[in-house]
Amino acid sequence: MNNEQNLKKIIIKKPLKLDCGKTINNFPLAYETYGSLNESKDNAILVFHALTGDQYVTGINPVTKKEGWWIHAVGPDKSIDTKKYFVICANVIGGCMGSFGPSHKNEETNKVYGTDFPVITINDMVNAQVNLLDHFEIKKLFSVIGGSMGGMQVLQFVSNFPDKTRTAIPIACTYSHSAQNIALNELGRQAITADHNWLAGEYSSRNKVPDKGLAVARMAAHITYLSKKGLQEKFGRKLQERDDFKFGFDADFQIESYLRHQGSVFVDRFDANSYLYITRAMDYFDLAKQFNGNLSNAFKKTDSKFFIISFTSDWLYPTQENKEIVIALNAIGANVGFVEIESDKGHDSFLLNVPDFLNTVKNFLDQRMR
Amino acid sequence: MNNEQNLKKIIIKKPLKLDCGKTINNFPLAYETYGSLNESKDNAILVFHALTGDQYVTGINPVTKKEGWWIHAVGPDKSIDTKKYFVICANVIGGCMGSFGPSHKNEETNKVYGTDFPVITINDMVNAQVNLLDHFEIKKLFSVIGGSMGGMQVLQFVSNFPDKTRTAIPIACTYSHSAQNIALNELGRQAITADHNWLAGEYSSRNKVPDKGLAVARMAAHITYLSKKGLQEKFGRKLQERDDFKFGFDADFQIESYLRHQGSVFVDRFDANSYLYITRAMDYFDLAKQFNGNLSNAFKKTDSKFFIISFTSDWLYPTQENKEIVIALNAIGANVGFVEIESDKGHDSFLLNVPDFLNTVKNFLDQRMR
Repeated sequence: MNNEQNLKKIIIKKPLKLDCGKTINNFPLAYETYGSLNESKDNAILVFHALTGDQYVTGINPVTKKEGWWIHAVGPDKSIDTKKYFVICANVIGGCMGSFGPSHKNEETNKVYGTDFPVITINDMVNAQVNLLDHFEIKKLFSVIGGSMGGMQVLQFVSNFPDKTRTAIPIACTYSHSAQNIALNELGRQAITADHNWLAGEYSSRNKVPDKGLAVARMAAHITYLSKKGLQEKFGRKLQERDDFKFGFDADFQIESYLRHQGSVFVDRFDANSYLYITRAMDYFDLAKQFNGNLSNAFKKTDSKFFIISFTSDWLYPTQENKEIVIALNAIGANVGFVEIESDKGHDSFLLNVPDFLNTVKNFLDQRMR
Repeated sequence: MNNEQNLKKIIIKKPLKLDCGKTINNFPLAYETYGSLNESKDNAILVFHALTGDQYVTGINPVTKKEGWWIHAVGPDKSIDTKKYFVICANVIGGCMGSFGPSHKNEETNKVYGTDFPVITINDMVNAQVNLLDHFEIKKLFSVIGGSMGGMQVLQFVSNFPDKTRTAIPIACTYSHSAQNIALNELGRQAITADHNWLAGEYSSRNKVPDKGLAVARMAAHITYLSKKGLQEKFGRKLQERDDFKFGFDADFQIESYLRHQGSVFVDRFDANSYLYITRAMDYFDLAKQFNGNLSNAFKKTDSKFFIISFTSDWLYPTQENKEIVIALNAIGANVGFVEIESDKGHDSFLLNVPDFLNTVKNFLDQRMR
């Protein structure tokens, strides 16, 4: 998948007991940083990435040679201003950009893990990443922030480590994965495991790639990241380099060509088994369940300032689901702000150039840092 | 796919010029009828089926041994009362229940058509089905009705044959397939063609079935037929015959088990190539484009009474798209009624026991028949 030698990583020696019951130790966590940690070590922001993200938040990703996934939000003078803040982001465990994941070799069997990799959870992900604070000798982060699955990690992090961050910004997320979202993730998993080359997860040891199935999974997900209106405005029924229908199954419409492209570029950078594991972690996420159904109790011990952001056209993690987090925080008198940003760009709004969103994040952070 | 000898069908001898340019003749159109045609032959209703439907509207489908797809709406004393009306429904061309389709043998090559079958359109479908009127010696239908792709056929039928029906009821449909819906259909097609056993469409001659890919396509579509709220209420995060997560990739959640079931039963009754062809016909559908962008002109020559029905939670063919048809009809002073039915059941509402919907259809038809 990538040349792992060149990636920055820490080896986590301390045993980590996973939710599945297994304990792991001596495992790698790959990370990247941007900006500088100040002397008082109180300007660090831990960014959590989403399903297919990685530690390369901004600048050029050295592996894919493409721009980082949050280039609009992170950088000098941007929303998360790297002239002011020290930004840390780690690849989640289960991922495929250097952190401990299913494409790694199992030292016990001398084979790639594949589906022998333990099923991990959002809780496991943040429990792995908290080790970065020790590594950088940071007592308390200035902020934790992330969208989508990154937002779930924000919620879990504050719940697990109530005194380890001053502020918390969960964006376009949920405290409990909905039936529709479980269904959509299951669709992606079924597409991957239906691929003849998936080989019960052992494709890499047999020099195969389940690229067609992974591409279908990506296409399915990509549709859900955009809004109906956004798709209509951007693509509508525009034809792809032709004047009329060809009466065949090539990509007559631009939207077809676009989706096929999204599928094909994704398989070059992402591991199919990681897709299975990370979607599973999302589906298992239910923070209220961890507190016997009372979400407020997840946040009882923290005095972190929360700021929750949703987008009008996000139908994957709609405003209502984000508001439920606000309500739970309000119920215990927590310090919480909330804004619903007007955008036609769907769930992907948090990744794109949406000025209202970018300004909102910048203002919140810079006000709190004064 | 099925024992075709026992299916009722007419052989259409008259050449039919398809939109793709090819002409077909001597091809079969399989159909079923319910109720009796009266002496004046003015009580016939032509029902158009949706993507995966067939001619077996009600009662027990003799091929699948399951209930017909519109059992709630069609039958004695039901919305479409077979004690009053003579109901006709034909399998669309391109389908797999006896009508001319890609699983038929090409007499010229002595091979199954597969992807050599001509790409057909909604226009071609209704032009084939209008032959049923001659067959039954019906000058004018009492009504044409259908939901989803069936509704598209209603619109096309009235446009093509403005004096051949007294009333028209397009349900939960659109006059022009949206970018999101093209994307979703393309996803299904990609899932099928990604299957190792699809074999460029020649699977049947090589005794294979691309069942995994077809099941993934069905799962994807099924998610879109239900609403987010409906899924949450019916399934939520309920587990499938277990007390807690199994930390694996079996179906932990009921929604996963349900989707897998929907996929697996579908492959027993539907042909993968038919799925490609019929979704293509839907994507090509743009009735306004046939009239240089002016939808009203499609209906200028008819004095049919229209009744358009949408559902609040249908996000595939939302109320707004149905309203655009109403607006085009109003613009030429056509006789048009419209109702948006309150339902949490999503696009599938038209197939389910939704009393407000069923009563609305019954009242409209029975009032007009007096």
